[in-house]
Amino acid sequence: MSGDADDWIARDAGVVWHGFTQMSCYAENAPVIVERAEGRELIDVDGKRYLDAISSLWVNTLGHRVPELDAALLDQLQRVAHSTLLGNGNVTTIEFAEALASRVPVHDPHVLFASDGAAALEQALKIAFQYWTNQGVDDRTTYLALTHAYHGDTVGSISLGAGGFGTDVFDPLRFPVVRAPGYDHPQWHERAEELVHQHADTLAAVVLEPLVQGAAGILVAEPEAVARVARACRDTGVLLIADEVATGFGRTGTLFAGEQCGIEPDLMCVGKGITGGYLPLAATIASRPVFDAFLGPDLGERTFYHGHSYSGNALACAVALAHLHAFDRRGVLANVADRAAQLDDLLATRIATLAGVHEVRQRGLMAGIELAPPADGLRWGRRVCAAAVSEGVLLRPLGDVVVLMPILTSTSDEIDRIVGALARAIEKVAGP
Amino acid sequence: MSGDADDWIARDAGVVWHGFTQMSCYAENAPVIVERAEGRELIDVDGKRYLDAISSLWVNTLGHRVPELDAALLDQLQRVAHSTLLGNGNVTTIEFAEALASRVPVHDPHVLFASDGAAALEQALKIAFQYWTNQGVDDRTTYLALTHAYHGDTVGSISLGAGGFGTDVFDPLRFPVVRAPGYDHPQWHERAEELVHQHADTLAAVVLEPLVQGAAGILVAEPEAVARVARACRDTGVLLIADEVATGFGRTGTLFAGEQCGIEPDLMCVGKGITGGYLPLAATIASRPVFDAFLGPDLGERTFYHGHSYSGNALACAVALAHLHAFDRRGVLANVADRAAQLDDLLATRIATLAGVHEVRQRGLMAGIELAPPADGLRWGRRVCAAAVSEGVLLRPLGDVVVLMPILTSTSDEIDRIVGALARAIEKVAGP
Repeated sequence: MSGDADDWIARDAGVVWHGFTQMSCYAENAPVIVERAEGRELIDVDGKRYLDAISSLWVNTLGHRVPELDAALLDQLQRVAHSTLLGNGNVTTIEFAEALASRVPVHDPHVLFASDGAAALEQALKIAFQYWTNQGVDDRTTYLALTHAYHGDTVGSISLGAGGFGTDVFDPLRFPVVRAPGYDHPQWHERAEELVHQHADTLAAVVLEPLVQGAAGILVAEPEAVARVARACRDTGVLLIADEVATGFGRTGTLFAGEQCGIEPDLMCVGKGITGGYLPLAATIASRPVFDAFLGPDLGERTFYHGHSYSGNALACAVALAHLHAFDRRGVLANVADRAAQLDDLLATRIATLAGVHEVRQRGLMAGIELAPPADGLRWGRRVCAAAVSEGVLLRPLGDVVVLMPILTSTSDEIDRIVGALARAIEKVAGP
Repeated sequence: MSGDADDWIARDAGVVWHGFTQMSCYAENAPVIVERAEGRELIDVDGKRYLDAISSLWVNTLGHRVPELDAALLDQLQRVAHSTLLGNGNVTTIEFAEALASRVPVHDPHVLFASDGAAALEQALKIAFQYWTNQGVDDRTTYLALTHAYHGDTVGSISLGAGGFGTDVFDPLRFPVVRAPGYDHPQWHERAEELVHQHADTLAAVVLEPLVQGAAGILVAEPEAVARVARACRDTGVLLIADEVATGFGRTGTLFAGEQCGIEPDLMCVGKGITGGYLPLAATIASRPVFDAFLGPDLGERTFYHGHSYSGNALACAVALAHLHAFDRRGVLANVADRAAQLDDLLATRIATLAGVHEVRQRGLMAGIELAPPADGLRWGRRVCAAAVSEGVLLRPLGDVVVLMPILTSTSDEIDRIVGALARAIEKVAGP
């Protein structure tokens, strides 16, 4: 491998368009150009190491270069990389779908695969819509979604989403939804329940992120509040779509966040952690009643005419299957519980007390530290994360919220190191 | 591996929801449950072999278990599987983006990655839209797309798409577009040119599949007709989005179909063949003027706030890079030319002459054989393909169009075998 970081950054900026990134200042924001990784550390082109405190953007669970996942990929590679799921099957895909089906809080589930989380949401919203039209109900054509919601970047996803990140520029392309308050509103669930009852006749589904509105800046809800909205759905017949793309696979302390709420969604979307952060894979999981509404004559109108070319990719499913097994065998949830408690303590004692911090929010190993800049345009989020990166701890902000998303197998020392670097970074930028 | 095909089919139907598949009769339509593959053959759970004449649904280019691709995957696996592109970079992603940028007919390109082809289209349509609003032009909010168009299954994609496959049920979610005729209309391009000029002030972009409307049933256009529509875009300032998800990577005889048309799109979408059929990867490629319209202050409104978690996945990019090299080294385009000529001859002499055949359409190694059933509901497409599958040639129809999509490295004997099986299958179902 040749070249130092500056050369690689210039090459990168010359041909790659990075998502959620202002490319005019990509280079000056000191990007890390990753060449390889070991455990929970990323290693850049100059050999500099960074503790991956964002789980490579919320996807990594067990660390990098995990022997069980590598072995599963190799084994599958010697069989077949990919075969189509359109009208045909693949052994590995079936095995993973069975394993996943046995773990999700969805009644008698069927799994429809995609590769991007946004595509899983698109599948869910289309299935919810056609669930009704297949039964001759043509006026359930809208959705209830929450303020601050983020469900991905495709047009259907940004329609469900609340228009943050400047996506309201796309209003002419977005379909309208019924909008309830977000998790930062103390009566969000009462208002959501009212709206579900009020609009029940026109709602195809309610969509929400159980427990945590992630991209909103780690806004958190009480489990019972989510459960009450789910009950409103059951009472009115409105379908419930749980977006567990960010919260799934142990991130909040249970395998799925919905488990803590005691909800059983009609449709559930997963992605990110599904392959432990190795390969693109996402899935929409449908309950039996939803699935059954699509059964009918061959080639008929009740069919769900939707499917991505790489749906159920065998290599990704092989990794995902090994990941579920490794997740159990390594006792990852127990570690998440211990590390989450440690993080909670450390954030309370070392971060929440800082003058530059407005609020600390956390569920499991998802945490958001909202800074309190005294004026607009100070870019505190960006500058705090840059200071942590210069110390070898990779962070990335959401505006002025610093997100901590440690890999689920993080050690006690690593959690200490992340919080220590963050505390110093905040003090450096915002004062003690 | 245990179990015979019937057991696996039952397990499959019990947990997997297959796209574009009526699940009530999934089992009775004799799906192939793939366990492994060798070269251009898929091998099912009973050890039965099938020549892959659909390229595992249009994605496979060099065959299965390709040594160069396996080696690239192993090598990358020993470095890192994935690191995020949001604000950071990865060496392998940069190397592949450079290689791709050097081959696409787009001016000074930047590459924005996704994993599903539909997501690449969503990126393109959103970029085209924001390209205008970033310049203060707020009334270019619609698109021109073609009748029969298929651009994927997400809400933005089915809005551009023509509503086939029963997607018109989702009309309340789809944004409206200006609709020109499809490639089956002899004056499609004159009409498209007129519409571009007529609606120029409100069009953000024209989107089309260069040379071949694939999912429409392999409808074909003349290169000059496509070029004329591209010129109408240039003359009016309307952006041109080329959807090369199906046609890209050698399928039509050139690396990209747009090359035969002499067009230089402002935005180009690729997927499917990009990894040779190994792993989910897709990309939206933007010209320099388009990319530049998004440059502005850090964290500002001109930024493209869009990005998928697995965007630019290192494992997929490693395979994609090795694929481009192997594609050249193996002289794949020369083989496509030879096999396409052979297929053209065979279809003319052995298929077009059959009573049950209405029309044969072909560009490179994409062919559609439109059957002519004398009455509705005979499911000739389904039955012809089933007959070929029972002979060990894997086909899948689009309605009553049988699609031939041979792997690009197919031998002369394999093309003979595919056409022979198809001829016998048509004669069996439709008579000689």
